[in-house]
Amino acid sequence: MPDTLFTTDAMRMVFSDRARIQRMLDFEAALAQAEAAVGVIPEGAADAIAACCHADRFDAEALAAAARSAGNLAIPLVAALTSNVAAADPVARGYVHWGATSQDVIDTALVLQLRDALALIDADVERLAAALAVQARHHATTVLAGRTWLQQAIPVTLGVKLAGFVSALDRHRLRLSEARGRALVLQFGGAVGTLASLGDRGIAVGEALALRLALPLPDLPWHTQRDRVCEIAAVLGLLAATLGKLARDLALLAQTEVAEMFEPAAPGRGGSSTMPHKRNPVGASVAIAAALRSPGLVATMLSAAAQEHERGLGNWPAEWETLPEIALLVAGALAAMADVAPGLDVDAERMRANLGLTQGQIFAEAVQMALAPALGRDHAHALVADACRRAAKERVHLRDVLRAVPEVSSALDASALDRLFDPADYLGESGRYIERALAAHRS
Amino acid sequence: MPDTLFTTDAMRMVFSDRARIQRMLDFEAALAQAEAAVGVIPEGAADAIAACCHADRFDAEALAAAARSAGNLAIPLVAALTSNVAAADPVARGYVHWGATSQDVIDTALVLQLRDALALIDADVERLAAALAVQARHHATTVLAGRTWLQQAIPVTLGVKLAGFVSALDRHRLRLSEARGRALVLQFGGAVGTLASLGDRGIAVGEALALRLALPLPDLPWHTQRDRVCEIAAVLGLLAATLGKLARDLALLAQTEVAEMFEPAAPGRGGSSTMPHKRNPVGASVAIAAALRSPGLVATMLSAAAQEHERGLGNWPAEWETLPEIALLVAGALAAMADVAPGLDVDAERMRANLGLTQGQIFAEAVQMALAPALGRDHAHALVADACRRAAKERVHLRDVLRAVPEVSSALDASALDRLFDPADYLGESGRYIERALAAHRS
Amino acid sequence: MPDTLFTTDAMRMVFSDRARIQRMLDFEAALAQAEAAVGVIPEGAADAIAACCHADRFDAEALAAAARSAGNLAIPLVAALTSNVAAADPVARGYVHWGATSQDVIDTALVLQLRDALALIDADVERLAAALAVQARHHATTVLAGRTWLQQAIPVTLGVKLAGFVSALDRHRLRLSEARGRALVLQFGGAVGTLASLGDRGIAVGEALALRLALPLPDLPWHTQRDRVCEIAAVLGLLAATLGKLARDLALLAQTEVAEMFEPAAPGRGGSSTMPHKRNPVGASVAIAAALRSPGLVATMLSAAAQEHERGLGNWPAEWETLPEIALLVAGALAAMADVAPGLDVDAERMRANLGLTQGQIFAEAVQMALAPALGRDHAHALVADACRRAAKERVHLRDVLRAVPEVSSALDASALDRLFDPADYLGESGRYIERALAAHRS
Amino acid sequence: MPDTLFTTDAMRMVFSDRARIQRMLDFEAALAQAEAAVGVIPEGAADAIAACCHADRFDAEALAAAARSAGNLAIPLVAALTSNVAAADPVARGYVHWGATSQDVIDTALVLQLRDALALIDADVERLAAALAVQARHHATTVLAGRTWLQQAIPVTLGVKLAGFVSALDRHRLRLSEARGRALVLQFGGAVGTLASLGDRGIAVGEALALRLALPLPDLPWHTQRDRVCEIAAVLGLLAATLGKLARDLALLAQTEVAEMFEPAAPGRGGSSTMPHKRNPVGASVAIAAALRSPGLVATMLSAAAQEHERGLGNWPAEWETLPEIALLVAGALAAMADVAPGLDVDAERMRANLGLTQGQIFAEAVQMALAPALGRDHAHALVADACRRAAKERVHLRDVLRAVPEVSSALDASALDRLFDPADYLGESGRYIERALAAHRS
Repeated sequence: MPDTLFTTDAMRMVFSDRARIQRMLDFEAALAQAEAAVGVIPEGAADAIAACCHADRFDAEALAAAARSAGNLAIPLVAALTSNVAAADPVARGYVHWGATSQDVIDTALVLQLRDALALIDADVERLAAALAVQARHHATTVLAGRTWLQQAIPVTLGVKLAGFVSALDRHRLRLSEARGRALVLQFGGAVGTLASLGDRGIAVGEALALRLALPLPDLPWHTQRDRVCEIAAVLGLLAATLGKLARDLALLAQTEVAEMFEPAAPGRGGSSTMPHKRNPVGASVAIAAALRSPGLVATMLSAAAQEHERGLGNWPAEWETLPEIALLVAGALAAMADVAPGLDVDAERMRANLGLTQGQIFAEAVQMALAPALGRDHAHALVADACRRAAKERVHLRDVLRAVPEVSSALDASALDRLFDPADYLGESGRYIERALAAHRS
Repeated sequence: MPDTLFTTDAMRMVFSDRARIQRMLDFEAALAQAEAAVGVIPEGAADAIAACCHADRFDAEALAAAARSAGNLAIPLVAALTSNVAAADPVARGYVHWGATSQDVIDTALVLQLRDALALIDADVERLAAALAVQARHHATTVLAGRTWLQQAIPVTLGVKLAGFVSALDRHRLRLSEARGRALVLQFGGAVGTLASLGDRGIAVGEALALRLALPLPDLPWHTQRDRVCEIAAVLGLLAATLGKLARDLALLAQTEVAEMFEPAAPGRGGSSTMPHKRNPVGASVAIAAALRSPGLVATMLSAAAQEHERGLGNWPAEWETLPEIALLVAGALAAMADVAPGLDVDAERMRANLGLTQGQIFAEAVQMALAPALGRDHAHALVADACRRAAKERVHLRDVLRAVPEVSSALDASALDRLFDPADYLGESGRYIERALAAHRS
Repeated sequence: MPDTLFTTDAMRMVFSDRARIQRMLDFEAALAQAEAAVGVIPEGAADAIAACCHADRFDAEALAAAARSAGNLAIPLVAALTSNVAAADPVARGYVHWGATSQDVIDTALVLQLRDALALIDADVERLAAALAVQARHHATTVLAGRTWLQQAIPVTLGVKLAGFVSALDRHRLRLSEARGRALVLQFGGAVGTLASLGDRGIAVGEALALRLALPLPDLPWHTQRDRVCEIAAVLGLLAATLGKLARDLALLAQTEVAEMFEPAAPGRGGSSTMPHKRNPVGASVAIAAALRSPGLVATMLSAAAQEHERGLGNWPAEWETLPEIALLVAGALAAMADVAPGLDVDAERMRANLGLTQGQIFAEAVQMALAPALGRDHAHALVADACRRAAKERVHLRDVLRAVPEVSSALDASALDRLFDPADYLGESGRYIERALAAHRS
Repeated sequence: MPDTLFTTDAMRMVFSDRARIQRMLDFEAALAQAEAAVGVIPEGAADAIAACCHADRFDAEALAAAARSAGNLAIPLVAALTSNVAAADPVARGYVHWGATSQDVIDTALVLQLRDALALIDADVERLAAALAVQARHHATTVLAGRTWLQQAIPVTLGVKLAGFVSALDRHRLRLSEARGRALVLQFGGAVGTLASLGDRGIAVGEALALRLALPLPDLPWHTQRDRVCEIAAVLGLLAATLGKLARDLALLAQTEVAEMFEPAAPGRGGSSTMPHKRNPVGASVAIAAALRSPGLVATMLSAAAQEHERGLGNWPAEWETLPEIALLVAGALAAMADVAPGLDVDAERMRANLGLTQGQIFAEAVQMALAPALGRDHAHALVADACRRAAKERVHLRDVLRAVPEVSSALDASALDRLFDPADYLGESGRYIERALAAHRS
């Protein structure tokens, strides 16, 4: 399980040893009750079993040790549960885990954990998207340099930059919702997915069990069709990638030499053990680390998915820690960004100042397009490119070079040329894009 | 581009150099026409440009070579197109690529290629699912050993094994449909995603362009929000994993020692350069190879997704070959399985014979469940486990060991015990699961 | 940290929270002492600091919580150490962590942990190789079916199969040795790798510090040149892959239908929660899981390696849990295989029986080569291939089909033909290969 | 095969279809000659076969198409070669591919290609290291801001930054050399690795064959022990990661706002299709793309390595394009960096100017260390941290804040304080580190 540093306390709770055991016990309790409801086992036995299904009564470390030779955690847990039940009700002991197999317990417990995990994640995606939407609106006309290939390109607004994230996060929420619909379902198939152990009452028990756990019953068990859980991994991986981009953009803007936007400051946050002046973007670091680690973990889930026949050998266990790890890392990244987003420390003045660094070259495309109707786009491109080279070489403002070019002065008078160097005049559809993205976000 | 061996000719066409160039030219032609329709450039120029947009007139190798110093293929292509247009219409040359940037061309061309690619894939998913649905129904009562951890577990039917794949493939079609809705959209944003080069007519041109290319216009450009294309990669990766499992199960069943199901034979198929008797499962090999290669490629797409600011440095190019490679591999795997599925060579007799290999131990769970009402599940489990160990050690049939156990004979008379060793009587919900999966497939 | 199930207790100790803190404190103690030796700080201060460097005196959970806002564990640890030193010696407190930076502590502590980890791994590689060498010699003439594409090919010996692993493990030991030489070195560079904080005494302190920690001093600090630690990840990944193959071969041979070789049995090992007869290969499962998880983790290490300038943002933290996780998983896989190897349960009789499954086709190449001098290899191949098809179709022994082919009987008399179907006569260089591999292993 | 954009022409030649076929034919020719030398086949046959082994006489596309149903390229190639030989010498036709299997041809051909590939790569690693060594020496005292977490930290020299790469590249050359020693060996084992087809002359033929191909003969065949080729992948992956860091540092230094170092300019290099002023770092882009793509490909090689028994199913083919792709990408990245390194466009003036951006805070550690003897490191840290916060808030120079702090002025007089703000005085061991790294490089 990832360090505190990389995840949230809430998500650590979801995937704690104790929570895992409780979710497995939730399955066993609900199974007994469902089987009693359908008439497969006695009511009294079900009650006695359910009464024992509390994680506090189990020794997590002893179970973990026993899992090593058993091959999975369900086997020692069922043994321990049986033993606990036996102490309370000698008859009920014979009905523990009736008709189920280890994978039913482990997979369904995982689904129950994922239900909690995805609810947390969805809430934080919403929180982050909402905060960025507020910022996008607030900074709809805050102009900064658009950058391509890490070079200043043409002006852009902070609003439209952030609106792109809002739009991506909205898509992630939709993906999460679709994936949850497919993945958060009961796994219940017995030894090989036929529920032969329950004769002709397998589906009936499955329905009652699904109802108790508030999970849909799928058309058939999915024990070795792992696309459901792999999809969760993939969707979380996509989300991690978006968070990684947000963090990277933030970190790049916070560079000493750019200094346009920072994470909000807090005492003790982002210091150095040796440099007294450091204010490191620790939120970005967490999100970037998650974005770097997720792809390999998603790949592991996909690699493990070709599980042989009715239960894989080694590949199913390969999922057990991998999927929780993705959820933990994404939760940490998401919380880091959601914590940072509302308090982004924007230096609009510096943004504007940085627009001047190229001595007008950031408006090269604007000039080109202004000249294009007269000269053709291609010729204008060549002409302005040449002027840019000269301006750079001579370290003068592009406008001054252009003023001296006859083809320019014949096409544009001085004030027309001057107006081309105003960033506020070269923002195109930025405003309407923000409106469109935020309107879609609201709906 | 993957070798012929690993993909289909149809998919190779979609991602050929020529097709890529043509799709880029389709964008340039549609752009000119859209701009003419909106009144941004003259109608005549648009016609002249569109007339030149045929891949045959371009030298793919020369463009590729020029891309090396330019950094992308769009720059030399636009230059070559401009040159071709100039030869035909000196005025029109000035309107080529008006207001667009390289990423608009390259991303939208990719989307157009993906549209073709995903149509091919969807059709083959449907073809495979349909073939497997037929087989699942046909083999609804074909009994074989269910296997967990590569050990015989309890009986299962071939029908329910295959129905699980039908169900997974149906989910993949749904995922593909959802992902296509998000990913198959126009990319058009100009230098940094503001369309500043088109003043206040950017969205209008975008709408006209989208219409011409029959692609939806998204709320705002997505140049550095790569979740759309990453999702395609992920969904294809999920599909590859399912195909990998199908292939692996097939290959395992085709082992000399198992010999239950084979790929259909064909002259020259699956031979060896030295062993005259070999009949290798070459379809499975292609699908397994794709399942092994996809996870790393999906991971690459996710790793590349944190693209800096308004255009990434190196990470955008990292996608260019990766996403096509995934589509090519998945197409090959899918075709391999879809070709194999209708002609699966099933040896039901051998399946039944193999059920006898454990000398009755494959029915251990059945005996346990029959004894459980009297003895309790846990005690029955221990008793049968002990009998299994003795049967294995003495190399005798489990039934013979059990007959001699007083607790067994007092609970089950000889004929009741005998009936427990009939595979047809221990299939649980297999039949209804097939019905459920196929009913869902039809709808 | 991986579950007990997937790793060894010894390796869990190496990477426990406590061990990590102790290794960091080992650095701080040695640093103070080295600086005292060189005359940078007072002797008394060094003694006082060293006296406080015991992990028991630190609250791991509180440090982990504080790391969240600090961005790494070193910052709160140095603060806590300073506070502990201050309580004991008010002067010494001012000399804690003198001249070092967080990365010096964290990286060197990691190197110290890796030194322990790699010693454990090397010992277990040796243990496994030794056990397999014994088995290879013992089974030098134990014949079983060689299998290609999961189909019986021609005979092979268990000895030569296992000798291949001995040879691979020997290469891994060599790789580990080379990689350790490069990776197990001191990291000590101060804020940006210049040790400016120590004026002109940086290298002198580095030498004294390296001596105390028994680590070589590299030519220059390697804080953002991560090839050293990535190589460790890669070499462990290579080892995991070999272990994965060993486990897979073992699992395939243990299939119910093959039944040629098994993991040694032990009470409670490899059972099922529902099927009383199961004896699952749990050792193989652990190794296969590690082989599935390692590639993605190695990829993460490589992806994280492009760390910006003098300390990366997010990418360095991405290593912190990833490299330990690889070591933990490999340790578990290695122990699982080393535990299994000496007691491999080989059924040589069944191996021989399985050689008969193809009704002679496993000797098709032998017949081809016997006919080749007379007929040409290509013609012999075609002739035998045709005979194989007929034998399969008619379900008769290949020999019987061949006997009726005039070209065969004119080239080979009956007894010559018969001899071709003796597996012991078609083992080629198996014996000498084993000798060569074991001779190399001894040296 | 990667686009021209991402690799070199020389490496494309090594892995072209034609070269692959030629290398396979080289194996077949040498095999025939070796067998003739040992007396296994007639001399004349060997001559006739060798005479036909020219790639020009084969139709690459037809072979590729035939490989689809055969499952590998060797089968149709051997058939075509046999047919060509038959036309020239009816007897010799019967001796083609004598005793070998497809994997012998394909793996050995790959090794021959790798030998060429690694020679190219080694030469370019040397070229890059040499160029960087020259730059490191030249810029031994060129001071720029060291940056951690993308924030200015303390000063560093360009020389020591680059010397770190020289040192890493030297390690890569050593790794390459070690890995080549293990991987560039003959694969020759026949159907399952016993060379049974050659009776007791297998090793003798192997020795003669190895001699002819100038490859060492390993102790035993390695057909399904894939650690040799996986190690090549891993070592290339490590190299790609170093190149990725070099490219990323370069790209970050070339940012408009940093503007300290650029790729050398060239006409048409790094332009934009729409922005006339762009000068994009296209070399860095190629190297970053390779660094992003390599980890997933290395992971694929590792995932594919658990090849079943004596020849894997699907996993061996999964290597065929993956390993060449890594070599191609690394070659491109390496050439891109080696082309850029000698002409790095360094703006030392701007570097110095950027050192002033923090208004003295980049010297915070220097001040802390100067105060530490008097105040203790911890107290000095806190005091300077507080001064930094005030300086930032009030937008004044750190020195001015410090001057007003009594504890500072009592410990340091004005000129002592001033001297702390001279970057040339705070470079620690930079110079000696460069010397050490370059001395090691020369040896």
